[in-house]
Amino acid sequence: MAVYTVPPLENLVDAFESLPGIGHKSAQRLAYHVLAEPEEEAKRLAGAILDARSHIHTCKVCCNLTDQEVCSICRSETRDKSVICVVEDPRDVAALERTQEFNASYHVLHGVISPLNGIGPEQLHIKELLARVNAGGVKEVIMATNPTVEGEATAMYLSRLLKPLSVKVTRLAYGIPVGGDLEYADEVTLSRALEGRSEM
Amino acid sequence: MAVYTVPPLENLVDAFESLPGIGHKSAQRLAYHVLAEPEEEAKRLAGAILDARSHIHTCKVCCNLTDQEVCSICRSETRDKSVICVVEDPRDVAALERTQEFNASYHVLHGVISPLNGIGPEQLHIKELLARVNAGGVKEVIMATNPTVEGEATAMYLSRLLKPLSVKVTRLAYGIPVGGDLEYADEVTLSRALEGRSEM
Repeated sequence: MAVYTVPPLENLVDAFESLPGIGHKSAQRLAYHVLAEPEEEAKRLAGAILDARSHIHTCKVCCNLTDQEVCSICRSETRDKSVICVVEDPRDVAALERTQEFNASYHVLHGVISPLNGIGPEQLHIKELLARVNAGGVKEVIMATNPTVEGEATAMYLSRLLKPLSVKVTRLAYGIPVGGDLEYADEVTLSRALEGRSEM
Repeated sequence: MAVYTVPPLENLVDAFESLPGIGHKSAQRLAYHVLAEPEEEAKRLAGAILDARSHIHTCKVCCNLTDQEVCSICRSETRDKSVICVVEDPRDVAALERTQEFNASYHVLHGVISPLNGIGPEQLHIKELLARVNAGGVKEVIMATNPTVEGEATAMYLSRLLKPLSVKVTRLAYGIPVGGDLEYADEVTLSRALEGRSEM
C-alpha cells in the first residue's frame, strides 16, 4: 500500500512539535492551519520568529531581553536605580510589571542554580549583578526567585555574596495567595503565612 | 512609570496567538522558548513554515495536500481508483490512512456546505469530483464527511449529484465507537447502532 507522505508537511509538524506544550495532535492542527490561512499570515509568523531571534538580546545592564543596547527600564529616568529586583526569567519581569506598582529596576539571572541539571552559578548572570552593586548607588536587592528548592538556594547563595557589599538583601513575602482558599493551601504556605502575619 | 516594551517580542507573541488553540499565556511561553533555544532551532521553525507554505498545494486529481503535481496516493499503481472516499479535510485522509485498511483513493472537499458560514457548494472541490466520476472507471463513492448537520447535508447534496451518473454512493456506518461505553453513548448514536445491527 502506498504510504501518503508530504515531506514539507511532516517537517512543519516536527518543528511545531518541538515547541513546549505542543503535542503531536496540536502540531498537526497548527501545521494544517498554516497551510489553510492566507500566505501573508504564514509569512508574518515566520518573519516574527526570525525578527525576534535576530533583534532581541540581553540588556547589557540588567540582562533582561531587549531590542536595544540598554532596555527601556534601565534607560528610564523615573525608575529607582537604587533598588534591584532579582528574578530568574524575563517572564518574571513581565509578571512584576503587570502589577504596575513596582518602580525600581530588575536583574534577570536567566535560570537558577540547579546541580541536578548541571547549572552552576557561573552559568547565570551573577557577575553582572555583582558589578552593578559594586559600582555603588544600590541600597536594596530584592530576591524574587521562585519559591522552589532551586529558587530558594539561589536566593540564599546570592544573599551570601551580596551582604559583604553592605547592601540590604530582602526576599518576597510568603503567604496565602489573594483570592485563594485556606482549605486548599498547603501546610508549608500556611505556616509561612502565620509566621509572617501582620497587625491589622 | 516607563512601560517595558520590546516590539519584536510583542510581534512574535501576537503571531503565535493568532494560531488556533494558542492563548496569550501559551503564546508568551512559545515566544520566550524561541528566544531561549539555539538560533538554528528558530530558523528551522521559520524555514519549515515558509517551505510548507510554498511547496504544498492541492493534488490536481484528488485535491488533497501534496508537494507534487499529483499526490502519492493518486500516483500509486496499487491503489484502487474505482473507489473514491470523499472527505471534508486533509486531516481526515490522514485519519483514514492510519487505519492501514483502506486501499482506494480519496477526494478532499476542503470544507462542507454551511450556509450559516456563507459556504456554498461552489466553494468546495465538487466540480473536480464530478469530473473524476464523469471521466469513467469509478464504481463507488464513499461519503466520509463528518456525522454533523453540515457533513450530512453535504453528503446528501453530493449523493443527489452523483446518483444520476450511475455510480454507487455509500455512507460510513454509524454506531457505537469501539472501546466506548453504551452507558455514555447518546440516544441518536444508539438507535443508529441498533438500526445498523449485523448478524454475528
